[in-house]
Amino acid sequence: MLNKEILENIRIIDLGTVIAGPQCAGLLGDFGAEVIKVERPKNGDPARRLAPMKDGASLWWKVMNRNKKSITLNLKSKKGNELMRKLVEQSDVLIENFRPGVLEKLGLSWEQLQAINPNLILLRISGYGQTGPKASLPSFGRAAEAYSGVQYITGFPDGPPVHAGFSMADSVTALMGAYGVSLALYERQFNNKGGQVIDLALFESLFRLVEFPVAMYDQLNKIQERKGNQHPGSQPINTYKTKDNQWITISAATDQTAKRFLKAIGGDELANDPRFITNEKRVENIEVLDRIIKKWMLNRTFSEIEKLLHENDAAFYSKVMNMQDLFESDHIRAREGIVSVEDDDFDELKMQGVVPKFSRTAGKVKHTGPKLGEHNLEVYSKLCGIDKDELSKLKDENVI
Amino acid sequence: MLNKEILENIRIIDLGTVIAGPQCAGLLGDFGAEVIKVERPKNGDPARRLAPMKDGASLWWKVMNRNKKSITLNLKSKKGNELMRKLVEQSDVLIENFRPGVLEKLGLSWEQLQAINPNLILLRISGYGQTGPKASLPSFGRAAEAYSGVQYITGFPDGPPVHAGFSMADSVTALMGAYGVSLALYERQFNNKGGQVIDLALFESLFRLVEFPVAMYDQLNKIQERKGNQHPGSQPINTYKTKDNQWITISAATDQTAKRFLKAIGGDELANDPRFITNEKRVENIEVLDRIIKKWMLNRTFSEIEKLLHENDAAFYSKVMNMQDLFESDHIRAREGIVSVEDDDFDELKMQGVVPKFSRTAGKVKHTGPKLGEHNLEVYSKLCGIDKDELSKLKDENVI
Repeated sequence: MLNKEILENIRIIDLGTVIAGPQCAGLLGDFGAEVIKVERPKNGDPARRLAPMKDGASLWWKVMNRNKKSITLNLKSKKGNELMRKLVEQSDVLIENFRPGVLEKLGLSWEQLQAINPNLILLRISGYGQTGPKASLPSFGRAAEAYSGVQYITGFPDGPPVHAGFSMADSVTALMGAYGVSLALYERQFNNKGGQVIDLALFESLFRLVEFPVAMYDQLNKIQERKGNQHPGSQPINTYKTKDNQWITISAATDQTAKRFLKAIGGDELANDPRFITNEKRVENIEVLDRIIKKWMLNRTFSEIEKLLHENDAAFYSKVMNMQDLFESDHIRAREGIVSVEDDDFDELKMQGVVPKFSRTAGKVKHTGPKLGEHNLEVYSKLCGIDKDELSKLKDENVI
Repeated sequence: MLNKEILENIRIIDLGTVIAGPQCAGLLGDFGAEVIKVERPKNGDPARRLAPMKDGASLWWKVMNRNKKSITLNLKSKKGNELMRKLVEQSDVLIENFRPGVLEKLGLSWEQLQAINPNLILLRISGYGQTGPKASLPSFGRAAEAYSGVQYITGFPDGPPVHAGFSMADSVTALMGAYGVSLALYERQFNNKGGQVIDLALFESLFRLVEFPVAMYDQLNKIQERKGNQHPGSQPINTYKTKDNQWITISAATDQTAKRFLKAIGGDELANDPRFITNEKRVENIEVLDRIIKKWMLNRTFSEIEKLLHENDAAFYSKVMNMQDLFESDHIRAREGIVSVEDDDFDELKMQGVVPKFSRTAGKVKHTGPKLGEHNLEVYSKLCGIDKDELSKLKDENVI
């Protein structure tokens, strides 16, 4: 039978907690995988209490865990462990973000998992990865961001290093993990040689993506430093304040785009100014160029600026958008960047639509993050042959 | 025949320029895809001149375009266009990041590409995506970062919004694109129903990953604002300066980790201080707690702090690592985070290793970014049956 959704035939056990593991499983759930989120009985995933909350429910939870089924399971109990093994037997992917060694202590080492299901793909996300001298140390997203080298290069030269404003290390690792899982699924389908382990450290995804500072330190012996919003090698690129206290980011650093931008703000005279005619010249005269742009921006409102840039075919900018701007954007609406999803607690909840957009097998948001244990009966009856009575017995025994 | 590398049987045409498209193709090249980078004759991809440079060569180029083959091709010439069609016929994936409409003008619309090769997967990366009122506008990485909403929330409450210090919008989109391509490859293999188009906007990858601020604005009518390195909902989380002018990021916000951390810096008295005993209390008393930690850090060198935290089993921190720190790290070495690759210009060039790590079909770095047109003979003879003489004729005609 054909898959209408890309991962329709794939069952994923999400053993992750808080952000990295669960967000990774969520990205895969957008494309049709059956994601079974396994949570501790009673309290569940701590992410159920992640800010921001409303009426006792975490709003983030409902987004990150959309499209998933929630079951409760006490992995440390003997019966719970047996149930886990039955789930593993019938699943394609297991995602975990425990500290290295925890899975082994639960009797779910890679060797043990393989013995249960040789086709299983195991994604292991941890602070420092499964190997190396720091493997057993704890690490959360913020520490991983610091360790990746990205925090050091974010911020102004005369100020402290700056965190990126969202759960960057966790979320980019979630995406890297989803990439890894989809590659492993392709390989398994193609080669038919079974599953494998994917070992991914929280800091590594960012470190991998940054690329140039490694080669630069190696060849030029130069440490990449903080540059604020400036770009010392390509001009003009910077963020400016407008008369009405908005912020606007300009990026017009090719010779052609720079010329059109400079013409828009200062006419032919500025566009043909020999100090700004090539990128080399613009970088050489970065301070005076920056001062001219800064002053021009401060003397105009954002909508005046926007109008002038568009009229001059020089729209090499974006407003620094806040959430209200994004909600009000026609473009976001047209792209279905924000979608409305039915929710038991909030009637309707707005959240991000699916990214990226596939022309034939589009992803879907089917429901918001589930209630704790909402799918116990459905999952345990289907996969473990357990009926309602047995289920309530297991609950009394603190197994589920 | 089995794939030893995951994407060994996959041929990708990389029509991208500068960062987003090429970095995406590079991520797929790490796992064995044959990536053919198609460049303009004479100047090639502008990324060949991307800073930092050494001896006339872009260091970043050599990392981003590793494992690829380079061919030159003038897509606007009739013969060039014919050659492109022959390449498309024999390829699995085409990656492009032109402004919407450019591919169509080149006679390579999705309909035309499908007619040539119904199995082709087309990844289209553009500033605002292929649809919506802003689709035809230009956009570079920095503007996309501003449009995504991430720049607005990065920085200190009393300061300007801050760019993330690396090509975040481009690079995270490259990763999202690689995820999309690998999903489409899986679907094609599974369903055997041919290729499809993936439409991805530069701002969308970040907007998708940020998650909570959308639901927060929707339900609480609150715009997420800049918080610097603080975390107003979980404490302690912040970045502090040490006596020897290093920066350290602390993340110890669960009750258990906070207690261990506070014990390490202030003994049982601080650990049991009723003002800091639960996260709710710590958030309530965030200023006094932050002041205590700040002072403690400023009075100690980084290595004193590190020693004390480890001794107390409270290593909930990371140094804010710069590139030198990363080069000197035993852990990076053990993880093969930085690898040495032979290079014609620089003998050996150090760059990022492959992420993530697969246990059975590991990725590889085979060679650094190629010289312009280095693989013309190999590719054109193999895929288009063109010999050396014909090739030099095509060169004279400015076709390649």
